[in-house]
Amino acid sequence: MTRVRVDLNISLDGYASGEQSAENPMGEDWGRLMAAYTGTRTMQERVFGDTTGAGTTGIEDAYAAAYFEGVGSEILGAGMFGFHFSDDPDWQGWWGDEPPFGMPVFVLTHAAPRPSLTLGETTFHFRSAAIEDVLAEAVEAANGLDVRIGGGVSTATAFVRAGLVDDLHVAVAPIVLGRGVRVWDGLAGLELTHQVTSEVAESGTTHVTFRR
Amino acid sequence: MTRVRVDLNISLDGYASGEQSAENPMGEDWGRLMAAYTGTRTMQERVFGDTTGAGTTGIEDAYAAAYFEGVGSEILGAGMFGFHFSDDPDWQGWWGDEPPFGMPVFVLTHAAPRPSLTLGETTFHFRSAAIEDVLAEAVEAANGLDVRIGGGVSTATAFVRAGLVDDLHVAVAPIVLGRGVRVWDGLAGLELTHQVTSEVAESGTTHVTFRR
Repeated sequence: MTRVRVDLNISLDGYASGEQSAENPMGEDWGRLMAAYTGTRTMQERVFGDTTGAGTTGIEDAYAAAYFEGVGSEILGAGMFGFHFSDDPDWQGWWGDEPPFGMPVFVLTHAAPRPSLTLGETTFHFRSAAIEDVLAEAVEAANGLDVRIGGGVSTATAFVRAGLVDDLHVAVAPIVLGRGVRVWDGLAGLELTHQVTSEVAESGTTHVTFRR
Repeated sequence: MTRVRVDLNISLDGYASGEQSAENPMGEDWGRLMAAYTGTRTMQERVFGDTTGAGTTGIEDAYAAAYFEGVGSEILGAGMFGFHFSDDPDWQGWWGDEPPFGMPVFVLTHAAPRPSLTLGETTFHFRSAAIEDVLAEAVEAANGLDVRIGGGVSTATAFVRAGLVDDLHVAVAPIVLGRGVRVWDGLAGLELTHQVTSEVAESGTTHVTFRR
């Protein structure tokens, strides 16, 4: 049974990384928010290609491993494809020739319609439809596996606010940022529709999981 | 060595209980925010006078017990004395004839000066001075024990923002309120001056402690 999943990394005061720029494409505080996560063995291997066994193991790494398990398709906002950084209609995004997805990826965009784009084992489909309709398509493409709403933050929280997300995993770093994208707005009462569990990792990051 | 302590109970989205009224003197969401805490054996005994051994034990109860340990004086905002609920200049607050403090309590108020008030084992002193000056007086009155900034929330966070607090304990209930008093504003970078530790209690509440 397909589940719809979101993973967020936020600060104690409820901010995800904001203010994207060419120098900081993931946002200005992304490094600090993600430090514990990117330091795991799983992320070192899966994202940074370090197969020497470097990186932390333990609770944090278990969440990192779970992030990659059982996903059959992904939905991204336009920014995560890299649309904001080029006006070139043939721009192939910022993920390079071998994007790390390896599955169908649905990109939400209001730009002019464009054909699907296959790079390596990843095929990007560009959609300007309602998120419910795009999700239905992604569920079918996932072929029984899960659909991950991969970001950015405003895309991910839009799916949560719309009641479309079954599993929301929020990694709360033990820092107070005071700036960024507010993730909790519009989510009051989420504990009434989802079961909440919390766990503190070795890094001090608290992993809060909402499941329905 | 006297330490200055603050304890807050907040939601995942960083709200403490807001909107005080005569019906909800501690604020509209206070009950939900405090449920795990008030359910502890320590709180049942110390606050509600239940000496039958009722209430939870464990991690939550350890924090509740620590709350009462080693405090020599307390600072409260005017609202916590109950000033907002009466115009009577002789109003003795809402704590009754035997307030639960049993120590000197300094009440921050801009109302007309009034003499100190002793009720049972508690003496209330009313001050309109700068918080640094009131704190100095409270430290002296604590006589080597700690000073607790007992609330309300805006009073407590004012002391934290001013850099006057050594130990900030934040109990984060696993609920998303979407309303109340925002506690993290103005506290960006608190992890740079204080050591942060986190622990999840049986109730699902995450206890985050900042210590310097």
